[in-house]
Amino acid sequence: MKVDGIPYRSIWTEGDGRSVRIIDQTKLPHAFETLPLRTLEEAARAIETMQVRGAPCIGATAAYGVCLALAEDSSDEALEAALARLGRTRPTAVNLRWALEEMAAAVRNRPRAERVEAAYARAGAICEEDVEICRRIGAHGLTLIEAAAAKKGGGRVNVLTHCNAGWIACVDWGTALAPLYLAHDKGLDIHVWVDETRPRNQGAALTAWELGAHGVPHSIIVDNAGGHLMQHGEVDLCIVGTDRTTRTGDVANKIGTYLKALAAHDNGVPFYVALPHTTIDWTLRDGFAIPIEERAEAEVTALTGRDADGVVRTVTVSAPGSRARNFGFDVTPARLVTALVTERGIAPASEAGLLSLYPERADG
Amino acid sequence: MKVDGIPYRSIWTEGDGRSVRIIDQTKLPHAFETLPLRTLEEAARAIETMQVRGAPCIGATAAYGVCLALAEDSSDEALEAALARLGRTRPTAVNLRWALEEMAAAVRNRPRAERVEAAYARAGAICEEDVEICRRIGAHGLTLIEAAAAKKGGGRVNVLTHCNAGWIACVDWGTALAPLYLAHDKGLDIHVWVDETRPRNQGAALTAWELGAHGVPHSIIVDNAGGHLMQHGEVDLCIVGTDRTTRTGDVANKIGTYLKALAAHDNGVPFYVALPHTTIDWTLRDGFAIPIEERAEAEVTALTGRDADGVVRTVTVSAPGSRARNFGFDVTPARLVTALVTERGIAPASEAGLLSLYPERADG
Repeated sequence: MKVDGIPYRSIWTEGDGRSVRIIDQTKLPHAFETLPLRTLEEAARAIETMQVRGAPCIGATAAYGVCLALAEDSSDEALEAALARLGRTRPTAVNLRWALEEMAAAVRNRPRAERVEAAYARAGAICEEDVEICRRIGAHGLTLIEAAAAKKGGGRVNVLTHCNAGWIACVDWGTALAPLYLAHDKGLDIHVWVDETRPRNQGAALTAWELGAHGVPHSIIVDNAGGHLMQHGEVDLCIVGTDRTTRTGDVANKIGTYLKALAAHDNGVPFYVALPHTTIDWTLRDGFAIPIEERAEAEVTALTGRDADGVVRTVTVSAPGSRARNFGFDVTPARLVTALVTERGIAPASEAGLLSLYPERADG
Repeated sequence: MKVDGIPYRSIWTEGDGRSVRIIDQTKLPHAFETLPLRTLEEAARAIETMQVRGAPCIGATAAYGVCLALAEDSSDEALEAALARLGRTRPTAVNLRWALEEMAAAVRNRPRAERVEAAYARAGAICEEDVEICRRIGAHGLTLIEAAAAKKGGGRVNVLTHCNAGWIACVDWGTALAPLYLAHDKGLDIHVWVDETRPRNQGAALTAWELGAHGVPHSIIVDNAGGHLMQHGEVDLCIVGTDRTTRTGDVANKIGTYLKALAAHDNGVPFYVALPHTTIDWTLRDGFAIPIEERAEAEVTALTGRDADGVVRTVTVSAPGSRARNFGFDVTPARLVTALVTERGIAPASEAGLLSLYPERADG
């Protein structure tokens, strides 16, 4: 998508086909900065420090991390060490594991001399595939927005989203936001309620920034507000992304997603989850078996913003001496999810629903 | 309760019995400052700018606001103007209306010469009554904590609360927090999950500050986290305050309360609401008829905290150009409330339940 009129992806290789560059998402929305990833360690740290985040973008970065490692040392030992290092960066997103398995399969049985080229080819393909997948998720999700608009006789469709499942969480387009970009581009009258998404404010900082840059009408709300809006008919549908979805349709996503799904269910508001197949963990049947990352308490107690002079500063908001706990994700049970929107179409959040889209997984 | 070992209330008169002083709650938790209220206008602005907040504390401040107005001009016109001015300050808390009606009844039919003294007497009594009411709420609520402790065989009781319904939201003790102070003082092993309570962070700033000052173990969490904790058995009970409760038991409270009540219901966690009788709106049967205040968007987009040097600064966290909406309260339907805890005891959240405690209201 475009930033100041210039098309960007969240991660790309430069002219030489080897140098990797990302948008530093920790600097948004206060500054738009890009950053080179030169080594395996830089790629791993970019994931850990959330310079890149969003399940598909994490997968793409991990793929390029393998490339960077092999460019330095293409031995079996270096490959395995790179896979292990990158695999430890974040525990919840399953795309990370998927991307690393894809990279391993692409290079493991090749002679060392071919590995670097094969790795870059596979990483590049992972990115292209992700773009195409997100475009298709958008096209399928668009039908839901169109149906909501038709139900309202062409009136404004209000969509609530949580966290950031937009283009910078992927490689381009986004998952949850892809249908919204397509709807807006098609001239549908939409307005997005953007949950600010504490503690890291991915909604207020990233989703609002993305939507604003593309001209999509939106309002930032605190994470507490969605239930009230749904009680008052101000939300026509919810759509969120996911970091991992079980084969039974349980959805791990940014902490707080479960609360919005409960409110949607209580008020008869459809609750959709948009995801690429790479986010489905076919090995899991129980969402509560998904490991939930606990992160640093400073993410809760301190915030970063710009002061009146535009200087970016970090301030502590909580009571001195009080400790905090910081859980990154929660699990929304399939029973609260109206439907899953994938690159292959829309299906109920259930094993039968997912298998109707991915029959090749029926033996799993 | 004590601050640095010195007993305080949230509002008091000084030695002359006429000068009114408050704790400036907008400065907490970064600084503890008290502030004189010298005129009607200062009292009204203290409520509007949330230097005082919390339904009972708002009522007490409004009562003293009438005193300050009459001290300047004890005419009928001045009295009516003061009641109107104070009545406009905040729309949701019903204690405000209650306190103003009490003050009007205490002075309206008196000769002008007696009004100031009668007003101060009634305002002082309102404060004393509130302290006694909160102490009784605490005693009744304590039985719920004790029951939870017994159920866990004396193990630690984890309590989740939202916003601040502590002693600085009242005159002393608090409503939702009163049982926790009593339980802690009695030696029960309790731990409080403190919702930070965006946008104004009353949880992270005020509840955590109160609990910390009193030595009650607690952890600050983002408002998104409560559902996850309840799914994992980490919450034994929830207890919150309320700004207005209908005669049918619907509860208006800080935005986000409804989401926690949904999660509690979904996970079989008891959800209690603590309130003085002054918070009950006997004229209303439908919680959705309660006016919900919409506040300034800057409360959402900007935050105030202290930097590494201890300087208090305000920073903007959201994307430049993005607008925000800011709804102050939501309504939790009675069906999601396990019980109401008042100064007269514990009852189901229903008209029958409330009338069992307040039979004198049966004709209403």
